[in-house]
Amino acid sequence: MRVLVVNAGSSSLKCQLIETDGKASMMKCLAEKVGSDDAYMNVSFYPDFDKTRYNVGGMRVEQVLAKLLDVLEDDPESPVSGLEQIDAIGNRIVAGGEYFTRATLIDDEAWENLLKCEELAPLHNPPADACIALLRERMPQTPQVAVFDTAFHQTMPPKAYMYPLPMRYYDEYRIRRYGAHGTSHRYAAQQAANLLGRPLRDLGLITCHLGSGGSITAVNHGKSIDTTMGFTPLEGLMMGTRSGSIDPAIITYIMRREHKSFDEIDALLNKQSGVLGISGVSSDMREVLEAADAGNQDAELAIDMYVYKIQKAIGGFYATMTRTDAVVMTAGIGENSAELREKIFAGLAHMGMILDKDRNNVEGAIGVNRIISIDDSPIKICVVTTDEEIRIARETDALVSRM
Amino acid sequence: MRVLVVNAGSSSLKCQLIETDGKASMMKCLAEKVGSDDAYMNVSFYPDFDKTRYNVGGMRVEQVLAKLLDVLEDDPESPVSGLEQIDAIGNRIVAGGEYFTRATLIDDEAWENLLKCEELAPLHNPPADACIALLRERMPQTPQVAVFDTAFHQTMPPKAYMYPLPMRYYDEYRIRRYGAHGTSHRYAAQQAANLLGRPLRDLGLITCHLGSGGSITAVNHGKSIDTTMGFTPLEGLMMGTRSGSIDPAIITYIMRREHKSFDEIDALLNKQSGVLGISGVSSDMREVLEAADAGNQDAELAIDMYVYKIQKAIGGFYATMTRTDAVVMTAGIGENSAELREKIFAGLAHMGMILDKDRNNVEGAIGVNRIISIDDSPIKICVVTTDEEIRIARETDALVSRM
Repeated sequence: MRVLVVNAGSSSLKCQLIETDGKASMMKCLAEKVGSDDAYMNVSFYPDFDKTRYNVGGMRVEQVLAKLLDVLEDDPESPVSGLEQIDAIGNRIVAGGEYFTRATLIDDEAWENLLKCEELAPLHNPPADACIALLRERMPQTPQVAVFDTAFHQTMPPKAYMYPLPMRYYDEYRIRRYGAHGTSHRYAAQQAANLLGRPLRDLGLITCHLGSGGSITAVNHGKSIDTTMGFTPLEGLMMGTRSGSIDPAIITYIMRREHKSFDEIDALLNKQSGVLGISGVSSDMREVLEAADAGNQDAELAIDMYVYKIQKAIGGFYATMTRTDAVVMTAGIGENSAELREKIFAGLAHMGMILDKDRNNVEGAIGVNRIISIDDSPIKICVVTTDEEIRIARETDALVSRM
Repeated sequence: MRVLVVNAGSSSLKCQLIETDGKASMMKCLAEKVGSDDAYMNVSFYPDFDKTRYNVGGMRVEQVLAKLLDVLEDDPESPVSGLEQIDAIGNRIVAGGEYFTRATLIDDEAWENLLKCEELAPLHNPPADACIALLRERMPQTPQVAVFDTAFHQTMPPKAYMYPLPMRYYDEYRIRRYGAHGTSHRYAAQQAANLLGRPLRDLGLITCHLGSGGSITAVNHGKSIDTTMGFTPLEGLMMGTRSGSIDPAIITYIMRREHKSFDEIDALLNKQSGVLGISGVSSDMREVLEAADAGNQDAELAIDMYVYKIQKAIGGFYATMTRTDAVVMTAGIGENSAELREKIFAGLAHMGMILDKDRNNVEGAIGVNRIISIDDSPIKICVVTTDEEIRIARETDALVSRM
């Protein structure tokens, strides 16, 4: 099945055309700085993926998508000669609220509920919805699926998703923990079950999605029972540029002292904090590791804090499950940084999570799902490689194939 | 030694005159609603402790203290005939910043540093300082000691006390984790070592101070290495009326939607949230437990959340210490609620913390330090009874005796 995957952000658009049978990408598109005058879109095709750059200055996200559809129709190198050759569309949606517990075919009812979710992610959901609306017009016969970052976490119990605020904030605004990276946690859990050779429903897993954003999930018997991200993706771990959890009183303290606006404090906590804020070097962990190796003490502190918060979160979820079979590492840092994995598990051996340093650090093993704990580690440690667009394509395929 | 213990809050004053040799209280004083027109002060004396009520309407906290000194001098039932019969004064101070790592005799240098700490706890430190200033005038010959809620936690490493904010917030404002309930955690750890019959320096302990406020501390080899309360006492666990940790993004979300001022959002998170906010019944866990027994589902949810967050915090600290020997329960709820202890440890048996239900629930055992885990529980569970005023008197005695 040929699936067009659409991943629209507040100022970006990532698309791929994926052949799910061969798991191959036939087209890749990345547009950045969307909305600004110097916005651009790079499009490339199988097999060479030579990029062609288009100026999309001043366009809204859905207008950029329209431009991509034109390219797909007109470019002689395009893998399709008409849009009707695309079998399905998979849209990544950040917030599905309490309406969506799984990937969903976008019929009229789902569309109405999608619009209701916009206020939960006012920067991310509206551009994604605008893309869906455009695609409903341009490709009315093509089934569209919405794949949600939050859906996997809808199995959390109230004790995990409720915040200790006056109850009316849940009743009136649905302020609660929604989590994120849901498709990634779900996929990592399933892959770990495959590695362990046991059914997912029998396992207690702690899945760690560690990229520029990061979250950890307790997956008990295949279901998310708790996760570190919350009402928004700001909560939880220290991230590339996000603070994660801090004393809530710090926010009004800083706003008072520096007369900051809401937008300024949101930008401070989301864009200028985390690994970047402490290290002063970069939000990219590779550069921070290099700086620490070169003797930069702030970079070293950033790494220590990053690792420590992951250890504490793993411990917290270890307490909430009666049994933990494995910890699963995925996403950019989780998959690729043997150094950070070693630091994280160096502090957790006493919990029965015992890393095998050689397995952790095999040359050329990047991209291969594998177990990296010692043979008799009571709790296994797994590495799982993931690709968000391919996951979305697969979920779309699975749903549309059942139609 | 006769120690006057002074515990001044933003709108309250609690004092005791304690004979540290006999560990007996000779006078108790409680003033509430200080600053308002209907403020009152109750004073009572050994041995009957019959309360006399004084009107202290419109007075500031230090003026109420001056009134108490008058009563101590003039009342025929007073245990002292003159203030010179008081040997020392112990002042409880909420915030000691990075200046104070232990209880400290208030000489001129300490006094200067005390004043610098005021901005860290603008509601609590200034009235306490005003009391110290008054006592320095009225009782210039009497040694005064400051006992800090934060001092015990000054041994935390940077990875535990730093927040992932831009570094300048630490450099300029000293925004960091300070913790609280320090004297209680220190005392609970020492008492647990006594119960276990082993030196504190050999032990890894998780101390749980659970009262109307609540915090949990990892005490490794006698030192605090991490604690749930942060820059202020708002962070961490769900408390009687405090939210504890929430997604930081919720704060600007609510402020935007409800046009709340800083004072209003602070009041919301500190006074209207927590167990009260969810249960809608009370901030007092006894009443909430009763309501849940009577079928109130919101009360039940509040208890579930309260217990769950404690379990997660214990798990987090379990991960950070290479060895945990015991979990120690103290303060109002920790000491007195066998029901909540049972709920908490029902979920932690798989970690080797195995409660003995009979020992947990012995009639008449309230007030007795004891071990309540089964004999071969890998990690012991202890209950320790504490009294803040007596702890402050003891720390004061210890310091003044060495002079």
